Amino acid sequence: MDQSRISFAELVALLEAIFLRFGTSRQTAAILADNCARCERDGAKSHGIFRMKGYTDSLATGWVDGMAQPVLEDAAAGFLRADAQNGFAQPALALAREDLVEKTRTNGIALLAIRNSHHLSALWPDFEPFAEEGFIALSMVNSFACTVPHGGQSAVFGTNPIAFAAPTSSGDPIVFDMATSSMANGDVQIAARQGRQLPPGSGVDSKGNPTTDPNAVLDGGALLPFGGHKGSSISMMIELLSAALTGGNYSFEFDWSGHPGAATPHTGQLIILINAALAGAAPFGVRAETLIDEMKSAGVTRFPGQHRFAKRKESDATGIALTTDELSWLEGLAKG
Amino acid sequence: MDQSRISFAELVALLEAIFLRFGTSRQTAAILADNCARCERDGAKSHGIFRMKGYTDSLATGWVDGMAQPVLEDAAAGFLRADAQNGFAQPALALAREDLVEKTRTNGIALLAIRNSHHLSALWPDFEPFAEEGFIALSMVNSFACTVPHGGQSAVFGTNPIAFAAPTSSGDPIVFDMATSSMANGDVQIAARQGRQLPPGSGVDSKGNPTTDPNAVLDGGALLPFGGHKGSSISMMIELLSAALTGGNYSFEFDWSGHPGAATPHTGQLIILINAALAGAAPFGVRAETLIDEMKSAGVTRFPGQHRFAKRKESDATGIALTTDELSWLEGLAKG
Repeated sequence: MDQSRISFAELVALLEAIFLRFGTSRQTAAILADNCARCERDGAKSHGIFRMKGYTDSLATGWVDGMAQPVLEDAAAGFLRADAQNGFAQPALALAREDLVEKTRTNGIALLAIRNSHHLSALWPDFEPFAEEGFIALSMVNSFACTVPHGGQSAVFGTNPIAFAAPTSSGDPIVFDMATSSMANGDVQIAARQGRQLPPGSGVDSKGNPTTDPNAVLDGGALLPFGGHKGSSISMMIELLSAALTGGNYSFEFDWSGHPGAATPHTGQLIILINAALAGAAPFGVRAETLIDEMKSAGVTRFPGQHRFAKRKESDATGIALTTDELSWLEGLAKG
Repeated sequence: MDQSRISFAELVALLEAIFLRFGTSRQTAAILADNCARCERDGAKSHGIFRMKGYTDSLATGWVDGMAQPVLEDAAAGFLRADAQNGFAQPALALAREDLVEKTRTNGIALLAIRNSHHLSALWPDFEPFAEEGFIALSMVNSFACTVPHGGQSAVFGTNPIAFAAPTSSGDPIVFDMATSSMANGDVQIAARQGRQLPPGSGVDSKGNPTTDPNAVLDGGALLPFGGHKGSSISMMIELLSAALTGGNYSFEFDWSGHPGAATPHTGQLIILINAALAGAAPFGVRAETLIDEMKSAGVTRFPGQHRFAKRKESDATGIALTTDELSWLEGLAKG
């Protein structure tokens, strides 16, 4: 396949033009384009330009409001709420970010509860920077009913990712971001497009029977939680914190059937920030490196997030590789 | 086997006498006896009287200080630290509890970071009451190196339990408390005593090879994390939050080899409390019940913690069943 290489700034500008053409505000276009381009740049293909169809279909059908102006509520000294007004979650986070950081510095811990929001990206692009600024960040988002609770027969939970970011004293931050379903929906979709089977235990078909066929999972079937009943409990916690606490929808509560192609779950997001400078003994970052060193001594060679940092260096040096088909598809979306 | 039935109060009194005889303060004896008796009463056998040998050996060898007076540090408006002074974590929590609740009411969220502490019990006995008072509680404890990180060959992590408790509007709170290893050490020990094999994927032997023999896991082998690389990431997060943030030891950092029989890991504990009354829309407890109802509709019949509430009702009605051997063993420990 022919490949093009474009710079990060060029990709951001291209994606920004697409978002604007599909009716977002300038600020939302800038935030989402940066977010999506960072996923593509860092090799997180399932949340890179692959997601642009979901974004544009959701905007085109009026399912998500690209012009929404989020509203911030100061609920308590360590508790912010944001109503994303049926817009994306990221502009709500951007609006709250400065207050959230200030509250965390002052109180040691603070949370931001976003409701009435849409999220179609990875979580790490927003949380890696918090760790680089010395905060420990924990975030959870629910999504759309596609995962069967342990012991159940039909989907209730979303893929419900959880992300964690923590600073180190000298190296890259520790960042993980993972679906609490057996795999991410984006990866099921990619497997379907590539004609690959899923690993056993990933999902069930429309009759609730185990299957390794990605199309059977996507076509009326469902995913399973990772790690059996324990992963299922964590996914349940994510529903409670992303929806019941924030005031957003559960993954099973919204109806997008009138918006064909809509792909952005209309739910909520919880963000907890901790001031790592208040750690009880040695500096947190130094201690974090002690753990990393011990894990390396035990033979661990791959750490969460590590592949992204490596891919980022490569992309920064040589540009982001897109196929010419991908590039002309994006250019087409931008020009209409 | 002959069985005796004793009341909860009788069991607490008996355990209290044992703790006192093994050199704890009156307050620590009362706290630990209540905690241990609640585990036994609620059918959580792996953390009930089964653990008394670990408690008494740890105290007898001077590994843990039963007379320790924890020290509380007010680090920020939402951030408490406690130095358990080489004592148990529960008395440190008891000391901090009122301040922690007050900070959570005022700030919306607060945390307690306990270091220099020992924990040999389940987490739920301490967190269920928070949920009953309207708080969402999240806690993590690291333990002793007995779990191999994903991709590694030797143990770095502990069993590293995570507990979550949340209120409902009318029924029992939602509470889960689970090891992030494939299973709890207590359950491995019970399987070894009962001559049962472990499920495949639970652990490795001393050479790093998979095994289902509980004795091979206990004798130089190790557990695996639950849920592959995802469970391993969560266990890593628990090390960072229970040790690096609190100022406590990592699971691999303490040396109890000079204290034969010592069983209480000398590490740290993190507790995060959220004021559920600040939820963004409908009351949190009402929303939590909406999720439970949907899970029931999807066919889920067992919820985390449910068996404990059922067993508690039974124990309250008929007394706690102990074998006569167990009872005379406890009476022997109390009398010396």
